[in-house]
Amino acid sequence: MARDPSPSPAGHIRLTSHPGQGAAGAPPIRWGEADPHARGPVVGTTTSRHQRNVVGTHSGSYGVYRALAVAAGNLERGHRADLTNTAPTDPIGPCPQWSEPERIVSIDPWGARVAEVFAEQIAAGLDIRPTIAVTKAHIHLPEVRQAMAFQRLKPDGRILLEDGSAAVTKIAVEPVWWLPGVARRFKVSEAELRRALFEETGGMYPELVTRSDIEVFLPPIGGQTLYVFGDVRDLADPSVTLTARIHDECNGSDVFGSDICTCRPYLTHAIEECIEGAQAIEHGGRGGVGLIAYSRKEGRALGEVTKFLVYNARKRQVGGDSADKYFLRTECVAGVQDMRFQELMPDVLHWLGIRRIHRLVSMSNDKFDAITGSGIEVVERIKIPDELVPADAMVEIQAKIAAGYFTTGEVPDEADLAAVKGRGLE
Amino acid sequence: MARDPSPSPAGHIRLTSHPGQGAAGAPPIRWGEADPHARGPVVGTTTSRHQRNVVGTHSGSYGVYRALAVAAGNLERGHRADLTNTAPTDPIGPCPQWSEPERIVSIDPWGARVAEVFAEQIAAGLDIRPTIAVTKAHIHLPEVRQAMAFQRLKPDGRILLEDGSAAVTKIAVEPVWWLPGVARRFKVSEAELRRALFEETGGMYPELVTRSDIEVFLPPIGGQTLYVFGDVRDLADPSVTLTARIHDECNGSDVFGSDICTCRPYLTHAIEECIEGAQAIEHGGRGGVGLIAYSRKEGRALGEVTKFLVYNARKRQVGGDSADKYFLRTECVAGVQDMRFQELMPDVLHWLGIRRIHRLVSMSNDKFDAITGSGIEVVERIKIPDELVPADAMVEIQAKIAAGYFTTGEVPDEADLAAVKGRGLE
Repeated sequence: MARDPSPSPAGHIRLTSHPGQGAAGAPPIRWGEADPHARGPVVGTTTSRHQRNVVGTHSGSYGVYRALAVAAGNLERGHRADLTNTAPTDPIGPCPQWSEPERIVSIDPWGARVAEVFAEQIAAGLDIRPTIAVTKAHIHLPEVRQAMAFQRLKPDGRILLEDGSAAVTKIAVEPVWWLPGVARRFKVSEAELRRALFEETGGMYPELVTRSDIEVFLPPIGGQTLYVFGDVRDLADPSVTLTARIHDECNGSDVFGSDICTCRPYLTHAIEECIEGAQAIEHGGRGGVGLIAYSRKEGRALGEVTKFLVYNARKRQVGGDSADKYFLRTECVAGVQDMRFQELMPDVLHWLGIRRIHRLVSMSNDKFDAITGSGIEVVERIKIPDELVPADAMVEIQAKIAAGYFTTGEVPDEADLAAVKGRGLE
Repeated sequence: MARDPSPSPAGHIRLTSHPGQGAAGAPPIRWGEADPHARGPVVGTTTSRHQRNVVGTHSGSYGVYRALAVAAGNLERGHRADLTNTAPTDPIGPCPQWSEPERIVSIDPWGARVAEVFAEQIAAGLDIRPTIAVTKAHIHLPEVRQAMAFQRLKPDGRILLEDGSAAVTKIAVEPVWWLPGVARRFKVSEAELRRALFEETGGMYPELVTRSDIEVFLPPIGGQTLYVFGDVRDLADPSVTLTARIHDECNGSDVFGSDICTCRPYLTHAIEECIEGAQAIEHGGRGGVGLIAYSRKEGRALGEVTKFLVYNARKRQVGGDSADKYFLRTECVAGVQDMRFQELMPDVLHWLGIRRIHRLVSMSNDKFDAITGSGIEVVERIKIPDELVPADAMVEIQAKIAAGYFTTGEVPDEADLAAVKGRGLE
């Protein structure tokens, strides 16, 4: 029945657009230009299609829910966001990194400031939407209260309050991929990248392959959330001590405290380190600054179904769950050990103007290599304290240390790994 | 450059498929058939395109990461998942609901059991993948340990262990949308639904409008995770007391404990209720059962960028953040108050065979209406205890109560609402 849909206000369905078609009114994007007007706004509107200069649309995967809202008649087709009072609570940038060649390829550096820098174009009718939002919050974690109870943390009324809340700036970031730059990060041709994105998603967005003139893609995936402890501007000052963790989502541990991995313990330990680091007063009377960058890459970006299938395969294999077979089981099910790709991750650090991380709360060699390889100095790495590793998570952490993860302790050999066992399925 | 990509093993790029094209080898899907072989497998492979009988592909939005992995040369194009030892830890179904007309339209009821029921087809070369995975876990929450310290919870060695862990079955579920049924849920024609999904995502999957013969869509969105306390089979027995919460993701509170809403406090309270309910021994010597269904619908399915923009607009409006303007500010920015759509949510309950929820730990009228409207009885509703509502979250909870959320307390009038104020941005 969908072959001939009933007429609607939008008229005829156009299946795919081609160069020259519908480009009237669409502002050009010159990625990496320092002046936002020379760079041009990112326009992913579905309301005024002739204004679009990207493949895809806003809100990552939530674009599908917005489409459902229109279908159900709950959301008016032509709705424009009223951006009154939504501006960032903290000014961020412009930093030199915003226009350094290829430094940022997966975020729109101007994404938080569109209402300000493109005010004229918006007033003239261009449907430009923020891809970044910056707000303030108080966060209240049981682990932080516990650290206070044990006198490891003390309230200072600025970073950590008497009631155990930490005052933070929090920032939501949607992915905005400049395809030529993304391709170079992965060391493939742009054509290969576009073709794989199209074909390996079962044919999502033919414009990926028909519109090489459109260089920007808003992929329907989750973004990132940043939590900053202290003054956001200090992130760009390499003389201010920065404590940082780049954390990839693990819902089962981060929310529910599953004991098969170290994700929440490491995250809450990093928050404690960030608070302590931001509180510490240094020469000159200034405190430090802390950063948690949280990326929606559930289960090494394999998704939870694959992750749980791997858990079963690990726990049921001959000899039980053991550290020497840890990576092998993921590879059997998923075809790869990991799909997170840290290649794009440093972009958000460059967007914040970071040049130096004094204390990186991470043992991941992939993250360390991506950060330092992108030109950011890492002074020190902080491993998870042994007492925070749940018993059943020893399989994971030992397998990772043997594979090259940072540690200050011993690196297990093959025999050691085979002896590290997890719980069975009961 | 992508206009004429270099030749690859996959040959020519096909932009969109049309009926009759490539259908050879693709098994038909007869949604709702009781016999899985009559129903047919859901095939979303990108490896053998002639086998495909859906629009879209597996793993929700993580399909984009899989495509990146292929582009980067990390994942072999033709990789097939080795499903050895991945079978569900607990048998679920088949339940009568699986074949009741239109009872389940957004999940593949056979999604956890493909390796078993379609073993022959997989051996013959069909690339069939699970869309549901069922495993066991121990979860360890600080709030549960606290409930033990205050003697509200006691370990029983079965549901709650001495060390404060709860033993659960956890289930990851990917969305599988049968479009004719989804359209009827939203009371629109299938053609309207298909057209909106295509146009309002900026042109995702032209097959949505060109292939009305393909009725199943694997949307690139997040799925659900279920945590079951007690025996999974008891969920389908209306005589066993079921405590349940349907929780929509809120990363800022669920993980980081942001005090602007009640999400994590309500979630951890529900877990406490689930543990207590599962422990309680009833006549006949059997315990109860508990269920948390966690849906990836961040920020009312608006996404975090929109959510944070709304926070700023709320806190900066004239008169400050107040409960009487709570919904208005969301509507100004997003065009709707909420995009979560509880219409599809009961599917997962029917998949588990649930007929009666004795204790629903939720105040949402949308969720209550969706559950009872789908034919599931709700005996009692449990509101969040007042002492668990953070001060800054009073704006949200009072606005919701005034709008019809369940409460055992007073319903505020307009003057009351105007007096409920939140913190400013500092």
